[in-house]
Amino acid sequence: MAAANDTLERLYKLVLERRKADPDKSYIARRLQQGTAKIAQKVGEEAVETVIAAMRKDKKELIGESADLLFHWLILLADAGVPPADVMAELERREGISGLDEKANRKLKKEG
Amino acid sequence: MAAANDTLERLYKLVLERRKADPDKSYIARRLQQGTAKIAQKVGEEAVETVIAAMRKDKKELIGESADLLFHWLILLADAGVPPADVMAELERREGISGLDEKANRKLKKEG
Amino acid sequence: MAAANDTLERLYKLVLERRKADPDKSYIARRLQQGTAKIAQKVGEEAVETVIAAMRKDKKELIGESADLLFHWLILLADAGVPPADVMAELERREGISGLDEKANRKLKKEG
Amino acid sequence: MAAANDTLERLYKLVLERRKADPDKSYIARRLQQGTAKIAQKVGEEAVETVIAAMRKDKKELIGESADLLFHWLILLADAGVPPADVMAELERREGISGLDEKANRKLKKEG
Repeated sequence: MAAANDTLERLYKLVLERRKADPDKSYIARRLQQGTAKIAQKVGEEAVETVIAAMRKDKKELIGESADLLFHWLILLADAGVPPADVMAELERREGISGLDEKANRKLKKEG
Repeated sequence: MAAANDTLERLYKLVLERRKADPDKSYIARRLQQGTAKIAQKVGEEAVETVIAAMRKDKKELIGESADLLFHWLILLADAGVPPADVMAELERREGISGLDEKANRKLKKEG
Repeated sequence: MAAANDTLERLYKLVLERRKADPDKSYIARRLQQGTAKIAQKVGEEAVETVIAAMRKDKKELIGESADLLFHWLILLADAGVPPADVMAELERREGISGLDEKANRKLKKEG
Repeated sequence: MAAANDTLERLYKLVLERRKADPDKSYIARRLQQGTAKIAQKVGEEAVETVIAAMRKDKKELIGESADLLFHWLILLADAGVPPADVMAELERREGISGLDEKANRKLKKEG
């Protein structure tokens, strides 16, 4: 298997490439043409399916729905012109990954 | 910036490490102790916030909410014992990334 | 127009009546046969569409998606054996409707 | 118990009345001031909690989360200037409640 971690970046590039493809031939082109509301709706739906798969304790379904969620989330990012690397950088930025847990912890303490 | 693409794998390892941490000191440990329903709920909530950020055309918010979504999704995966590499492999498997768009396309044609 | 407020109760009764209908002829019977996960998924999806309609400031769409949300929520209640009157009673119970706002207020103050 | 079916209409009127209340004293006034995105977010979150309660087969939780969902949905309607009676009318309109099931059925047949 190729380094799994490159998957999101490569997939994002694929989404960008298909932006101008024939919508009759490319599902991605069709989704992008439908606009933000329809793409965002799909992200919400796949998140609900991921939640339900987790509640059912069905690992295979959790993997499949998570893949759908990431796929449609990448289309949403492409629609907004945000590369996934920006999201990864934000995760890194939160004090460096080593500090993220403590930061989240402080935030929660404040909340109650 | 370190290769952004390792972020999810490293963060997943961090989540696993914190599993046995003191819940008073670690937000991740606390979330994992609360169980699947509460973790899944958080994933659903962050997805809703991601959807809303996209609808508002607010890039900065989209990045922040997406980071939250991925973070809580990794905790959900850890709770289920599913490494993110399994999800990446599923994305790869769907005929290889190059064929994913056509596959999704065939599925859609069937649907409508 | 018949008193709008009886709508949910009458619709709930309809859902119960269709429970044993031929799934080939009744959409409701088919949904109920698919089980809790699929019904709950639909509720989640319609809520996402309601959220998006509100964000788009589209009143007609908000009405339509809200109707879908209530319809599938009633099927979820029927699946669980919970009449909508129990939910209305819970809304009433929260100190009587007149006290509901102050109660929610106290809860929020506690949260921070 | 007062006729349960008036609950939504009365509660909607309460929400409208509180629109101009002091946000320091009224939770509803505060929510309305926060604007559509925050109100819609709450509807999405309560829907996720309703979904999870249903998956857990917890009737009491399903009733409580459903009450929360309806409460925040009414605030969303108030924010948009849509009375719940309009949604009930839409449910009625779909060929009269007696025809709703067959209509949904026809739609599904078309979908696949």
